[in-house]
Amino acid sequence: MTQAMSPGELEAALRQIGATRYHNLHPLHRLMHEGRCTRIQLQAWALNRYYYQASIPIKDSTILSRIEDPALRRVWRQRIIDHDGEHEADGGVYRWIKLAEGLGLDRELVVGARAILPITRYAVEAYIHFCATRTLLEAIASSLTELFSPNIIGERVSGMLANYDFVTKDTLAYFTARPVQAQRDSDFAIQWVKAHALAAEQQQAALRALEFKCDVLWAQSDALMHAYVEGHPPPGAWRGEGA
Amino acid sequence: MTQAMSPGELEAALRQIGATRYHNLHPLHRLMHEGRCTRIQLQAWALNRYYYQASIPIKDSTILSRIEDPALRRVWRQRIIDHDGEHEADGGVYRWIKLAEGLGLDRELVVGARAILPITRYAVEAYIHFCATRTLLEAIASSLTELFSPNIIGERVSGMLANYDFVTKDTLAYFTARPVQAQRDSDFAIQWVKAHALAAEQQQAALRALEFKCDVLWAQSDALMHAYVEGHPPPGAWRGEGA
Repeated sequence: MTQAMSPGELEAALRQIGATRYHNLHPLHRLMHEGRCTRIQLQAWALNRYYYQASIPIKDSTILSRIEDPALRRVWRQRIIDHDGEHEADGGVYRWIKLAEGLGLDRELVVGARAILPITRYAVEAYIHFCATRTLLEAIASSLTELFSPNIIGERVSGMLANYDFVTKDTLAYFTARPVQAQRDSDFAIQWVKAHALAAEQQQAALRALEFKCDVLWAQSDALMHAYVEGHPPPGAWRGEGA
Repeated sequence: MTQAMSPGELEAALRQIGATRYHNLHPLHRLMHEGRCTRIQLQAWALNRYYYQASIPIKDSTILSRIEDPALRRVWRQRIIDHDGEHEADGGVYRWIKLAEGLGLDRELVVGARAILPITRYAVEAYIHFCATRTLLEAIASSLTELFSPNIIGERVSGMLANYDFVTKDTLAYFTARPVQAQRDSDFAIQWVKAHALAAEQQQAALRALEFKCDVLWAQSDALMHAYVEGHPPPGAWRGEGA
């Protein structure tokens, strides 16, 4: 086994994974924010990504159920509150529905999630399963993609507003709230990982967990690209309105 | 809810799913058996498909663990015996390793399964998870893709032998044993499903389970196509020997 790193070296290694494997590097992201997507492609993205968004509080509840320390639970539960909101018309999942509706999708289509790509479903299920069955350290480390999300959100919002006349600031309200939450959450999570992954084996497990999570995001973009950019939607998947 | 079908109508509806959603209809299958794949593309198929093959006895053990009737367990266990063999150099999983080696892959690369596509892993995990958590009827109905496998195997073997000079009959020995087993297994399974899915709700669940399984196979072909035909292998995935 390799030797243990210092906490600073571990943080650098985690950030290096983001620099090489985060989905801001995926070709689909570039197509999207450069204005080269069709309306149907953006709708497909919003439709599929809804299933991921809606599953995040389930993933975090799974993690919450595995935390024995009430102090850590008090911190982690905020993620669920942020996504589910304080009332029905509030929270990240609600704002994603508004985003999908703003792009012209029917609310029932989105919330029903029956027409998403099977690969979206498998990737999201794999993420929940990972957080339910791996160590708590790996579950928390897998959340560290949020370290890299403020950048992609910045590019996405400015690019989409500049390049698609059917996208409004109001539609993208989801992204207004997220960067502050993501930074607060990932600041906490990386400190926690640095404090709890001291042995070399734990550090390697944390690095592999973050790679795993990057793969989960990348796979979702691969599936969207294959189905809606390269034009091979699988049987049963959404094919654009009226199709 | 719709009205219940007769057992014969249910069988026809199940076979109709195969006729419209089984992966013999996937473009990758046509490329493969028409001789239009590169050696690396066939290797990528064998490498990824190994993970699916190796997971089938795990899936069947999961089903076995949920069966309360010893008579049904005695039938179902044969699937595990067929895949794992009577000794080390025997069984379907072993023959798949020989197939991969015959195509020029390193045994360690194949068996380690570290360089497969993340989507392959997620799809296979989703299948195991489905069989672990849905009703026994749905788990058994999801195995019914085997009704359609003798056809695809026939096309695949003759097409591959005719079109690739590096593929030998010996390499494809896996496919010699499978059709007889698949027919015996699927004959049993469809009779069981017809006898146990009498209510309309059960019949719909069985149909959805078979659709789900077709999606699991289709998604694996989509992922191979995107990565190795359209040329977008994700970070960390195998890129051909020496790459």
